Amino acid sequence: MQPTTFHFELDGHVGVVRLDRPDRLNALTFESYRELTDFFVHLRTRDDVRSVLLTGTGRAFCSGGDVKDIIGRLFDVPEADLFAFTRMTCDLIENIRLLEKPVVAGLNGTTCGAGAVMAAAADVRVAAESAKIAFLFVKVGLCGADMGAAWLLPRIVGLGRASELLMGGEFISATEAERIGLYNKVVPNDDLYSEALEYARRLGAGPSFGLAVTKRMLNAEAHMSLREAMQAEGWIQAECMKHPDYREGFDAAMEKRAPDFGRGVGVVPTRSSKESRR
Amino acid sequence: MQPTTFHFELDGHVGVVRLDRPDRLNALTFESYRELTDFFVHLRTRDDVRSVLLTGTGRAFCSGGDVKDIIGRLFDVPEADLFAFTRMTCDLIENIRLLEKPVVAGLNGTTCGAGAVMAAAADVRVAAESAKIAFLFVKVGLCGADMGAAWLLPRIVGLGRASELLMGGEFISATEAERIGLYNKVVPNDDLYSEALEYARRLGAGPSFGLAVTKRMLNAEAHMSLREAMQAEGWIQAECMKHPDYREGFDAAMEKRAPDFGRGVGVVPTRSSKESRR
Amino acid sequence: MQPTTFHFELDGHVGVVRLDRPDRLNALTFESYRELTDFFVHLRTRDDVRSVLLTGTGRAFCSGGDVKDIIGRLFDVPEADLFAFTRMTCDLIENIRLLEKPVVAGLNGTTCGAGAVMAAAADVRVAAESAKIAFLFVKVGLCGADMGAAWLLPRIVGLGRASELLMGGEFISATEAERIGLYNKVVPNDDLYSEALEYARRLGAGPSFGLAVTKRMLNAEAHMSLREAMQAEGWIQAECMKHPDYREGFDAAMEKRAPDFGRGVGVVPTRSSKESRR
Repeated sequence: MQPTTFHFELDGHVGVVRLDRPDRLNALTFESYRELTDFFVHLRTRDDVRSVLLTGTGRAFCSGGDVKDIIGRLFDVPEADLFAFTRMTCDLIENIRLLEKPVVAGLNGTTCGAGAVMAAAADVRVAAESAKIAFLFVKVGLCGADMGAAWLLPRIVGLGRASELLMGGEFISATEAERIGLYNKVVPNDDLYSEALEYARRLGAGPSFGLAVTKRMLNAEAHMSLREAMQAEGWIQAECMKHPDYREGFDAAMEKRAPDFGRGVGVVPTRSSKESRR
Repeated sequence: MQPTTFHFELDGHVGVVRLDRPDRLNALTFESYRELTDFFVHLRTRDDVRSVLLTGTGRAFCSGGDVKDIIGRLFDVPEADLFAFTRMTCDLIENIRLLEKPVVAGLNGTTCGAGAVMAAAADVRVAAESAKIAFLFVKVGLCGADMGAAWLLPRIVGLGRASELLMGGEFISATEAERIGLYNKVVPNDDLYSEALEYARRLGAGPSFGLAVTKRMLNAEAHMSLREAMQAEGWIQAECMKHPDYREGFDAAMEKRAPDFGRGVGVVPTRSSKESRR
Repeated sequence: MQPTTFHFELDGHVGVVRLDRPDRLNALTFESYRELTDFFVHLRTRDDVRSVLLTGTGRAFCSGGDVKDIIGRLFDVPEADLFAFTRMTCDLIENIRLLEKPVVAGLNGTTCGAGAVMAAAADVRVAAESAKIAFLFVKVGLCGADMGAAWLLPRIVGLGRASELLMGGEFISATEAERIGLYNKVVPNDDLYSEALEYARRLGAGPSFGLAVTKRMLNAEAHMSLREAMQAEGWIQAECMKHPDYREGFDAAMEKRAPDFGRGVGVVPTRSSKESRR
């Protein structure tokens, strides 16, 4: 499955998804929404992909739904189509969360609207200094509860700052986003791709089974009681202890070497970061 | 409905609620508790009020329940009256959260006890440099779970810092409160009112329907599963796309002008900030 | 009940639990896990213990499960024993949360694996400058959802930073841990014990009943709806108002003296901090 509306390549064990309409600030279309939504399902069974880097080409990571191709067209569609569209946008975010592999958002520049929610749905966010971000839905007359933003953002930055960002719709700088816990790391613009790729590579070198369980539990425990969570973690970690990765982790520690988890997929990039950046 | 135990006025589309017993550090009485609780219900149907600024006169925002008028009298009342009182205090906070309009707390000074919980119940908090804050319930022999504080505070500042504040009951400075995400903005004392009013005005200029939905969802998604939230946001955003504000947002963007959402309530203040501050 | 696998002593009203295998970086064994788990139940009915300080001897607070005594042996046990073990580790954390007294973690040095989760389960964390911390489960081939870490950590530091820590397994410094809200306070190494003890003493001097309720509600409200929380807090605070501590708080305020809550357990340490530190 080779996508047609965005770029995809494998760099070592990292699946690099790159939005690639720099002249439109990587705005999404109905077609790219649909294809991204399906692609994150497809990635579940791609054993050669152990982690994902979601990034963009040019000055923006993603400016959201294309004003002409999406927003302008939504006024003329039947109500059923409206809902089919919003449902699909939510599916995209849900599929990112349900992909039980580490997803690193490499925010190469301006990040807003649907782009901001995609960023929030990733597990961690590495951002260029220029990567200002806005959940600007109220600015276009909509609600801030778009694509799961009102679920994700308060859990990342807390209810006060999430209220500010979702009700105000204003941009904040990368520095500020890092300070409040929205970005995990901010790097010089020129280093964004290599730093984000390296982060994805490092996470992907971890135990695939253990990482899948970690992500599943982070999703699930967000609404569990303490007691339910304790019961669940007891079961799930016992399962992990039966996995060969646990033995490998122990052996590696005893032999004072790096562990080689999973299928031994190479961790050396197939091309240099520079080349693969286009 | 003109309140008698606090001050209310309309400044443009901002409803300004001002606690006004500066000689008692704006301590609440049974009467002002009751009137505030009812007033936040009243504001739901006030179409001329698009956002609310909750602030105080003098050196304090609010020092909580009046020691003489409330605390001293609670020792002598029947158990049923005790519970009627605590239930009402919780209703006040719940009514602030259920008012589906942006509520800005303009913290003009010392904020503690019930005042701290009112501040936490607002959507965003703009604070004067002098606005130290304490959830001091344990200091008077009570529990920190007062008026919803044990629900609100961990969601705003995280469980560790909330535990510190609720179990210790100590004051923290405005600077510290901003650092941990409890305050959204700290400004010089003299600028508090104008800055907080401007914040409320800006939020109130947003799309009333979209903002109402945003606040409703922030309340509701705090205990939803990821899947429930995704289903809900899909439906709700499709509804917002049928609202005239969405068309207005698009038209404004095309015409490169500021959108004029809602009923066209004027955004120019009826009086200058200075005058309205008393 | 005098424990045999760790050190326990009463310092004033503070129960000091000290992990004490400095040559093994205070690694846990099956026996110490079991005894700690039981001991936190025992502490519930120890009326002389009004708060707990959980700390360690030497360069580490706790390095987690002993590589030889636990990890090495888990490969050879029947599945039922695996689960019995993970269940017990979860019970330890749950018992720390269910002890309705303030628990201060005094992190005297390296804190990782099970040690990191014990730290996260405490109410507040006071750390030495040298107290780097890692949730390193993925590093040994397991999942990050260990002993409740995937429930606790996102609620303390937010989902983004929790994902980073649980999926990456890397150490962060004490300074960084404080910045993101994981540590409440960082102090010079030499001051760790006295500062953490003082913190525990101060919390323990609060109203035992009110503090118990506060902790219970912080546990419970993490998965409550806003409405449920408001109903619960209304009831519970009315109960607290019937407690003698409320009267004492009022009287103390009127008489401008410090309140003497609870049973009047002495707040003066029985030995100097220096001596009790070994």
